Amino acid sequence: MVPLLANLAIALLHYPVYNKHREVITTALTNLDVHDIARSAKTYGLDRFYIVTPSIEQRGLAQRITRHWQEGWGAAYNPDRKKALDIIRVCDDLDSAIDDFQNGFDNTVKTVITGATEWPGSIAVADLKQLLEKPDNPFLLLFGTGWGLTKECFESADHILKPITGAGSYNHLSVRSAAAIMLDRLRGL
Amino acid sequence: MVPLLANLAIALLHYPVYNKHREVITTALTNLDVHDIARSAKTYGLDRFYIVTPSIEQRGLAQRITRHWQEGWGAAYNPDRKKALDIIRVCDDLDSAIDDFQNGFDNTVKTVITGATEWPGSIAVADLKQLLEKPDNPFLLLFGTGWGLTKECFESADHILKPITGAGSYNHLSVRSAAAIMLDRLRGL
Repeated sequence: MVPLLANLAIALLHYPVYNKHREVITTALTNLDVHDIARSAKTYGLDRFYIVTPSIEQRGLAQRITRHWQEGWGAAYNPDRKKALDIIRVCDDLDSAIDDFQNGFDNTVKTVITGATEWPGSIAVADLKQLLEKPDNPFLLLFGTGWGLTKECFESADHILKPITGAGSYNHLSVRSAAAIMLDRLRGL
Repeated sequence: MVPLLANLAIALLHYPVYNKHREVITTALTNLDVHDIARSAKTYGLDRFYIVTPSIEQRGLAQRITRHWQEGWGAAYNPDRKKALDIIRVCDDLDSAIDDFQNGFDNTVKTVITGATEWPGSIAVADLKQLLEKPDNPFLLLFGTGWGLTKECFESADHILKPITGAGSYNHLSVRSAAAIMLDRLRGL
């Protein structure tokens, strides 16, 4: 079952994202993004979760959080957490994440971007689910932090996924919740 | 559409739950549980999210977090967050949460408990989804913190929901992710 699932990976981008004034910023790492998304990704059989930030200090922080649960005290205290954090790779930009994920696949990695708003030409979750059925076609699912990935990110991604909608006009999921729901829709049941 | 959705509510219990040594404890409040579950609940059209803890200090903390985003600086900074946190009610025990939710319904509130392990007599998400189609039947979905709700909680709940399973044997979602996925399965699409 593993080779079939390994063609999906997640990248969490801390740049280039908007703040609430639509200025392009680098966000700070959120500890629970690291834990929650790693645990969800591992639960749905993914082998890779890329944490992407251009800040060398923030990459160092991501490595320290990860290592705390992989080595020494944290690993012994909670081995399940270790298994989840083992799939994390920390990268300085999206291209490095794509390059890493490309290893082991002959076909080119395609990026799939998601966000809270609808874009023209978006594909449905069912479409991506179908694309993922070919295990030799790798897809990297991009999530943004802050107020979302920039327009340029959406324009340059290979696919845009329709946003998760709930029961009405309110649609403000955390990135941790959105990633969990998207993985369940793509890999659950 | 709102009356149809209002018959589902969530309660997050901080007692009685196990720690990793299967001792019954009261867990401390996690700030992002409050935010993430409120945002997911609001997105899926719920009117109530109960935060339940017997600790008066912890209830005070829950109130302070909520009020920060409902009044003054937080409310002006992020009105969407205010809308989500408005559905929170802080209670000292499960009975108080049930009593509050019972208001407005003639039919008795039924509790539905969820966790990471399978119990005999569990019902599927599809079964609960069907039960929820009658808008006058209220259901309160219980989530535990720590290492999960006690055996007695599972034995005394009206329904036990089958656990969310992923791709293999690893199944360690955060309560924030589990709540998001369960709401999507019950109310999404």
